[in-house]
Amino acid sequence: MPTPSGHTRAIAASRVTGTSVYNEQGEKIGHVEDVVLDKMSDKVMFAVLGFGGFLGIGERYHAMPWSMLDYNSDTGGYVVGLSRDVLEKAPSYDLNDLMKQDGAGQSPSMDYYAPYARH
Amino acid sequence: MPTPSGHTRAIAASRVTGTSVYNEQGEKIGHVEDVVLDKMSDKVMFAVLGFGGFLGIGERYHAMPWSMLDYNSDTGGYVVGLSRDVLEKAPSYDLNDLMKQDGAGQSPSMDYYAPYARH
Repeated sequence: MPTPSGHTRAIAASRVTGTSVYNEQGEKIGHVEDVVLDKMSDKVMFAVLGFGGFLGIGERYHAMPWSMLDYNSDTGGYVVGLSRDVLEKAPSYDLNDLMKQDGAGQSPSMDYYAPYARH
Repeated sequence: MPTPSGHTRAIAASRVTGTSVYNEQGEKIGHVEDVVLDKMSDKVMFAVLGFGGFLGIGERYHAMPWSMLDYNSDTGGYVVGLSRDVLEKAPSYDLNDLMKQDGAGQSPSMDYYAPYARH
C-alpha cells in the first residue's frame, strides 16, 4: 500500500540514514541520523534526527516517533508536520546520552511529541 | 532491560547491517544485509539475511522476523535458533524481489518462520 504521499510502505533502514528532513513549509531542518530498533520485539523505538551543528560538532539530536516522518517523493526527504516553534522547544540530546539505558533517555521526547502523533 | 543474552535492548539500525549471523552451533551462516521498516507504523517489517554467494554474486536472501535474531555479545553477532535444515528449506529471494510490492513478497517467509518465532 502506498503511503499518503504515494511512497511505498516498506523501506530499507540503510536508505533512511542521512536523508534530509523538511518542515511543512519545505524548509530543510535537518537529517535522519539513525533509527533505533527494539531488539526484543518487532518495533522501531524511535528515529534520531540531527538539527544543526557544524559538521556534527555541537550537534544536538532529537528522538522522534518514526511514524511521524512522512516521506515526500518530490524532495526525496522526510516531512515532519510540526512548526519550528514546537521543534525548537523539544528535548534534545547528545547522541551518546540518547542510547544510554536502553534508549530510556528518550522517553521525555516521546511524551513531548505524543500530542502531535498520528492516531 | 538487557536481552536474554545480556545485551541492551535498544540498537541503532546503522549498527545492524553487515553483522554476522550464527546458528546455535556457533557456525557462521551469513550476515544481516538490511532491516526493512514499515513507513506507516512503528514496526520493523523484517530483517534481510544474506546466506552465501560469492561477493554478493548469486547471493540469495532470506526475510526473517527481526525478533528472531538474538544478539550474542561474545561473538558480536546474531544467533538464529534454527537448524541448518530449517534454514536451507526456507524461501529465499533475489534482493530486489524482496522489496517489491511493499515487501509483500516476503510473506511466505513470515509464514514459514512463524512456528519457530518467540511467543
